[in-house]
Amino acid sequence: MKPILATTAVGLMTAVLAGGALAGALSPEEQIETRQAGYTFMGWNMGKIKANLQGDYNAEQVKAAADTIAAIANSGMGALYGPGTDKDIGDVKTRVKPELFENMQDVGKLAGDFTKAADNLAEVAAGGDESAVKAAFGDLGQACKACHKKYRADD
Amino acid sequence: MKPILATTAVGLMTAVLAGGALAGALSPEEQIETRQAGYTFMGWNMGKIKANLQGDYNAEQVKAAADTIAAIANSGMGALYGPGTDKDIGDVKTRVKPELFENMQDVGKLAGDFTKAADNLAEVAAGGDESAVKAAFGDLGQACKACHKKYRADD
Repeated sequence: MKPILATTAVGLMTAVLAGGALAGALSPEEQIETRQAGYTFMGWNMGKIKANLQGDYNAEQVKAAADTIAAIANSGMGALYGPGTDKDIGDVKTRVKPELFENMQDVGKLAGDFTKAADNLAEVAAGGDESAVKAAFGDLGQACKACHKKYRADD
Repeated sequence: MKPILATTAVGLMTAVLAGGALAGALSPEEQIETRQAGYTFMGWNMGKIKANLQGDYNAEQVKAAADTIAAIANSGMGALYGPGTDKDIGDVKTRVKPELFENMQDVGKLAGDFTKAADNLAEVAAGGDESAVKAAFGDLGQACKACHKKYRADD
């Protein structure tokens, strides 16, 4: 993976100098890489919660993982699906289906369900009740899958 | 970037079946990719805060970005620096210097400073005071750089 921290900063700086601003300043390649980074990092944290539910339950680790997933879910990843990010760009591959970009209302609903499920898991995880976390974790998994099934290739 | 969500889940499942558990179950390659994903995603959110401070200030966006950085900082990324992750593994490149693995006490201090600065930024961002955010953001940037300078190549 390319280190895109530096290029991200440069991209944003360029946009600011040009009078533009914010997340739209990332190139399509950077948007794809950044959204994949978000999913990868959420995936790691989902894996940790799953392992806790299947083995010894460490409430502190589960809370930290759930907080991370919720924060990423609420970070405005929609900005990372800009024009030109609907297909591979050279070595930067994406599994997104072009259909996602043609069904933004449906995607917005699925994203809302996902964020709500992530917020709920974080709230439940803070309580420390393993069986409640198990249910909330299952709900979040379903919310992930609902979008993957429709808009991710190979699902 | 490879989609490692699925392989991460498989890795964790394998470890659980083998009687192991948790984050140590990731392969060295997955650990490198996952920690890079965390830094990439934090970098995007740092860039958003910077753009807000240099342009129109959207307190809600800054809060979401700061919350994300703080959550990732608190997610236990130390587990992603396991044995074998001190150098490139085939196509999986890392900029980490081997020195990091020989100075864990110092790294622990730097990581603590970083997490403290990230928590402080999230707290300040919730208050919505742009000038306070600017100071806290600068402190966080210094905490990032303190580790990069010592333990990241090309810095």
